[in-house]
Amino acid sequence: MSQQEIAAVNREFEDAARKGDMDRLAALYTTDGMALPPDGPFVTGRDNIKQMWASVAQQLGLKEVRLHTLDLQLAGDTAYEVGEGALTLSSGAAVVKYVVVWKKVNGQWRLHRDIWNAKAG
Amino acid sequence: MSQQEIAAVNREFEDAARKGDMDRLAALYTTDGMALPPDGPFVTGRDNIKQMWASVAQQLGLKEVRLHTLDLQLAGDTAYEVGEGALTLSSGAAVVKYVVVWKKVNGQWRLHRDIWNAKAG
Repeated sequence: MSQQEIAAVNREFEDAARKGDMDRLAALYTTDGMALPPDGPFVTGRDNIKQMWASVAQQLGLKEVRLHTLDLQLAGDTAYEVGEGALTLSSGAAVVKYVVVWKKVNGQWRLHRDIWNAKAG
Repeated sequence: MSQQEIAAVNREFEDAARKGDMDRLAALYTTDGMALPPDGPFVTGRDNIKQMWASVAQQLGLKEVRLHTLDLQLAGDTAYEVGEGALTLSSGAAVVKYVVVWKKVNGQWRLHRDIWNAKAG
């Protein structure tokens, strides 16, 4: 059940990114969520996460994100996911590895900790 | 209790890195642990993690790692940490952000998922 719910949020994430809807993207994080973008600072809270995604999307010319879950483990109202993100950028394709710690808040799974880096090899 | 135990493993991590003891470093991960180094592949299992650290340490001239926990939350036998790592390299100092998912196995906290990237800003 939770696995499907988390997968559904990942599909929402992809859809919000495709549409450039940063409000919706940020709403998929917990209110005290943290994102750790490469070569960036710790980004805490939905407002800052929204700004960060808007800035990243603009800088990279982000057109699409495809999230592929490799591993997802549940621990009560927490879950952690390892996955791969296929990005379509104005400069071409890029692949990132990520770890997301999920938290269930008011019955909804939300990204609580989100970190990624470039994949190679 | 668990928080102190995890802090103690972080001190062991620092000590193993300082001494270049990659066997000991790898033993701090779960047997099915995964490390996600920037610009690298998914690295699974202690043998591969040991090789990866040996390679990273050699390439960067890694002399010292200082881990600073910013947030640590427990969820049963799982925990997740957000922190900052201060690296001393042959080229100078560098700072990384990291997320570690910890797992308690046979009474011992071990790194289960480990991902980091460069900090800026």
